[in-house]
Amino acid sequence: MFSKSTIKYIQSLQHKKFRDEHNCFVAEGPKVVQELLTTGDFNCKSLYALQSWVDAMDQELQQYLSGRIWVVKDFELEKMASFATANQVLAVFERKESIAPVSVKNELTLALDDIRDPGNLGTIIRTADWFGIKNLICSNNTVDQYNPKVVQSTMASLGRVNLYYTDLATWLPAQKPVPVFATALEGKSLHSFSGTREAIVVIGNESKGISAEILQMANGLINIPRYGQAESLNAAVAAAIVLYALRS
Amino acid sequence: MFSKSTIKYIQSLQHKKFRDEHNCFVAEGPKVVQELLTTGDFNCKSLYALQSWVDAMDQELQQYLSGRIWVVKDFELEKMASFATANQVLAVFERKESIAPVSVKNELTLALDDIRDPGNLGTIIRTADWFGIKNLICSNNTVDQYNPKVVQSTMASLGRVNLYYTDLATWLPAQKPVPVFATALEGKSLHSFSGTREAIVVIGNESKGISAEILQMANGLINIPRYGQAESLNAAVAAAIVLYALRS
Repeated sequence: MFSKSTIKYIQSLQHKKFRDEHNCFVAEGPKVVQELLTTGDFNCKSLYALQSWVDAMDQELQQYLSGRIWVVKDFELEKMASFATANQVLAVFERKESIAPVSVKNELTLALDDIRDPGNLGTIIRTADWFGIKNLICSNNTVDQYNPKVVQSTMASLGRVNLYYTDLATWLPAQKPVPVFATALEGKSLHSFSGTREAIVVIGNESKGISAEILQMANGLINIPRYGQAESLNAAVAAAIVLYALRS
Repeated sequence: MFSKSTIKYIQSLQHKKFRDEHNCFVAEGPKVVQELLTTGDFNCKSLYALQSWVDAMDQELQQYLSGRIWVVKDFELEKMASFATANQVLAVFERKESIAPVSVKNELTLALDDIRDPGNLGTIIRTADWFGIKNLICSNNTVDQYNPKVVQSTMASLGRVNLYYTDLATWLPAQKPVPVFATALEGKSLHSFSGTREAIVVIGNESKGISAEILQMANGLINIPRYGQAESLNAAVAAAIVLYALRS
């Protein structure tokens, strides 16, 4: 039943600890919820929506979700939501299992060394999905992929890119002979890497960059040519430029 | 004097209306404040810092700012700040005049058609600075460059890239014969635009893309090759990839 304890439960899923405990996460707002329902990558456990949203729902979807839809008032929805914009609908989905890739041979893979900003992780996942990257290997200190802000900025790409959280310092050496690339000001121009078909590209933390331990594991250092004076590029922007160039 | 009215004044600068009225904006946190002071692109009107930060200040800078530095307690700083992370220091700077570029011939220019997210605008300014773009032409509905979140994510690039807010539908046609490029799924592959030295690249709104009115002014449609399934790229990411490719 829809009750105070339901509101508490949904609010609790804003925190990783409870997402781990219940193996669930929350998606908010019509666009994200609709996308996740349509791709079918995640099992929907329950859906809370205004009457108007339910009325406008696809018949087949409504039937499929039968017994899991709860009509709520807007003030109730507001209480559950973490965003001010989460009007109309909110849904609880089951997380997917995060799988260690059997192999990253013959493909491009991204490795994230402590990306902490949820917006950045969301953008990186979406960009990876655009460039057909299957696996994103995240250091254990990288922000959780089911953080509400990540879900919000990633949308359906969340179900199409496999994120695997692990200790990069152990995982990277185990992938030999797949080359490891890192971005660095003293590297070789990105232009010379064009057409690379197999590599793991490491993207560093927003303020500290790539840790010294990981940097020394790199077989190639990539420099994104600079024409102006900015000291650095945003992490998601750097990842995007590198992926575009390697795919060129 | 440091007083309640000072706190009110600084809080008011979180809103565009009051930034316009006082021609000032706020930078928060050691990194941003230090950068803006060092580049000297903006005139510092007043600076509020913990005793420890003032003690560690460069002597020359301290002398230069003499009479404009106020030592505050951390709870006072917290009241003034818009970010939780704005510890140690906060400064009020005078805005720079936003200037209509005399000409955008023989160079690359970005035009933003209603970018609403401050984080995206900040990232775009930093990226433009990296690629040596001098002018960013913003539609009147684009978020203000002195919004606290923009300042936070842009840092010193804010003083190096000229942002000019105007009506794009009037401004763009007046730049003929400089070509106008827009990103679009049905465009020509970005690869074929490499080496472009002169163009205005239009970046669209986060959810609506480029407006129909502006799109029909484009002389060239650019497609960023897609290898996966994401529906779209983040606006700042798209801008970055296009700039990298045109500069290649």
